[in-house]
Amino acid sequence: MTSTLPEARSTPTASNPLEGYLALCKDACDGELERLYGPGDGGPNPLRELILDYPLRGGKALRPALSIAMCLGLGGYLEAILPTAATLELYHNAFLIHDDIEDESWSRRGKPTLHIDHGIPIAVNVGDAMLSLSLQPLLDNVERVGLGPALRILRAIAKMTRLTVDGQALELDWVRSNTWRLDDGDYLKMVELKTSWYSFITPLQAGAIAAGAPLERMTELESLGRHLGAAFQITDDLLNLRADPEEYGKEIGGDLWEGKRTLMLLHALRCAEPNDCDRAVQILSRRRPGSDGELGLSDLLDRLAVRGELSRAGQAEIVARLQGLQPSESKSLNDIRWLYELMVSGGSLKHARDVAAGHAREAATVLASLDWLPPSQHRDALVDLVDYVNGRTR
Amino acid sequence: MTSTLPEARSTPTASNPLEGYLALCKDACDGELERLYGPGDGGPNPLRELILDYPLRGGKALRPALSIAMCLGLGGYLEAILPTAATLELYHNAFLIHDDIEDESWSRRGKPTLHIDHGIPIAVNVGDAMLSLSLQPLLDNVERVGLGPALRILRAIAKMTRLTVDGQALELDWVRSNTWRLDDGDYLKMVELKTSWYSFITPLQAGAIAAGAPLERMTELESLGRHLGAAFQITDDLLNLRADPEEYGKEIGGDLWEGKRTLMLLHALRCAEPNDCDRAVQILSRRRPGSDGELGLSDLLDRLAVRGELSRAGQAEIVARLQGLQPSESKSLNDIRWLYELMVSGGSLKHARDVAAGHAREAATVLASLDWLPPSQHRDALVDLVDYVNGRTR
Repeated sequence: MTSTLPEARSTPTASNPLEGYLALCKDACDGELERLYGPGDGGPNPLRELILDYPLRGGKALRPALSIAMCLGLGGYLEAILPTAATLELYHNAFLIHDDIEDESWSRRGKPTLHIDHGIPIAVNVGDAMLSLSLQPLLDNVERVGLGPALRILRAIAKMTRLTVDGQALELDWVRSNTWRLDDGDYLKMVELKTSWYSFITPLQAGAIAAGAPLERMTELESLGRHLGAAFQITDDLLNLRADPEEYGKEIGGDLWEGKRTLMLLHALRCAEPNDCDRAVQILSRRRPGSDGELGLSDLLDRLAVRGELSRAGQAEIVARLQGLQPSESKSLNDIRWLYELMVSGGSLKHARDVAAGHAREAATVLASLDWLPPSQHRDALVDLVDYVNGRTR
Repeated sequence: MTSTLPEARSTPTASNPLEGYLALCKDACDGELERLYGPGDGGPNPLRELILDYPLRGGKALRPALSIAMCLGLGGYLEAILPTAATLELYHNAFLIHDDIEDESWSRRGKPTLHIDHGIPIAVNVGDAMLSLSLQPLLDNVERVGLGPALRILRAIAKMTRLTVDGQALELDWVRSNTWRLDDGDYLKMVELKTSWYSFITPLQAGAIAAGAPLERMTELESLGRHLGAAFQITDDLLNLRADPEEYGKEIGGDLWEGKRTLMLLHALRCAEPNDCDRAVQILSRRRPGSDGELGLSDLLDRLAVRGELSRAGQAEIVARLQGLQPSESKSLNDIRWLYELMVSGGSLKHARDVAAGHAREAATVLASLDWLPPSQHRDALVDLVDYVNGRTR
């Protein structure tokens, strides 16, 4: 058992200490994923290769790093947290695969997305396999960290999934019902559910539990993770607006096309003149472009007809649905540009940057107050991570 | 705590004892799903409504019935197995939602599939939420059945998901590599992994564990579930060939379009004259029809262009991919009819029916030999279920 990070398998060319620390965590996590989901004795296994595809493309492995730093920082063993860290990373990558399908994304970590490479059916399947396979390592924790901590980690992850689903539901509901009378507090409550638990609070808490930390530490870690999550998500939403149109396959303002309720969009709607506000709400009510929205019905109709699969009743119903859908107008590129300008002229981007920076400062304050986390390279890495989250828009 | 089934909430009009028993189990399972995933205190929740959509449409709830019958038949309590039974049903329905996307199915239980009703993004999301939410009830088992049995059930479900994923991988690999030199034994090994654990062995074992059955009962239940799974899957594959073209939205021989290696297809290939075999293998190498296979690239290209999302480099790559794909020929309706005729003339359908009946008889023999399962309405229901699985093609 070791309470330090091993040497990197590949030699990292880290330009700063945090990059070096992240590379070591990523390396340890990749090794664990290969141990858990590599080909094993059964020889080549196409599904298992695809399970490892996204994780092994790179990425920061932020969640494993948070878990590992908290566990080692509290004197725990790397072996005690690795299966959980790898599981959190697997969850995250499963959601990335499915998000890429949902968002029609073309590129992920410099390569075509999994559904572009292998088709939607296989990409749905691989994500499901990843979610399904995440249970075993969490059960193996009983042998690694003991029954009590293993059950606490399982409960933490069950809570995480429940709150994440609730956060996604809330966001979905706002878009579908075209709700917009929402303030910063509403947005932050949604982001805590959707982002903070899954990406920050649970990784931090799992690391502490694996190191044997008592229950009373959990509240402060929840506060740290909540602020980090808010700063991270607001910054992510700001970056989404700034994607370089010439960057390979990157979407410009995909959030605006989807109608996502970001902090700056909600701010712009609240601050806009009544006429502009009406126009913005009108635009947001329009669907994303495509032959018939996201249903792909006309395409489906063609394929089913070729395969002779459709009864006359079924065909009539699809045609009726198509006719019902066509009148609805879709957003145009000009609509998106106009929404963007509304946010810029209303100072909404600046407001969002300020709110994100405020939460990053709060996170730094909470972290500085954790007197039960002794000075170490792991604590330093957490401090650097807070700075990193705050600095991503600069 | 009760060891009998409650009265049905709706009055079932059961034409035979098994139907009545299944209706009671389905009712108990639906009630548990509503308790677990209903709106709760938070008011209407769109994602939670969609989680309950497929389960509440009907269906036989075969897996919960197997769990409940085994648990009550061994003197266990309904409360001890209900959360697990509901979780197995939730898993199953999550996979149905995602299978419907993958298979481009139009209808499920008499209504449009979830992705037709709400679009692919939401359908992917709802299935993920169902898979993610299945952990909590299994943890709540600690309070219901005690720590030991709760952990055994968790381990049984982790094993089930691992083997199911391996079975899907094997099937996928056969289709993608156009493998066909496979015999009944190869097919049955794949089906044991893909179907038997998930639909039969694990539900039976979980029911027994919840009733406090000792470890040594598991082997016989594995044998019972293995034979039931084989009979069930072969019959399912036979039914797939027989779908009524005038039935609402039902696919004719969808398995043939996908190139699935069924027992009868493999038998037909083994028994065919060399010329016919070559032609069949050639047909199987062709993709399913559609503008560009399953990738939907031309459609995607249109949408991304409208949204101004694509760089010149990205656009060039999609176009190159489209050109690379177009030469590949797709299966025609005549191809599918010819494959079907090959199976009929080679006696492959009869062979498959015989093998299925053989496994159903084996299952009945194993069930009859379980001297530790006392006579009861629950044991009778299991006997009837074996008959039902065997009788579905008659």
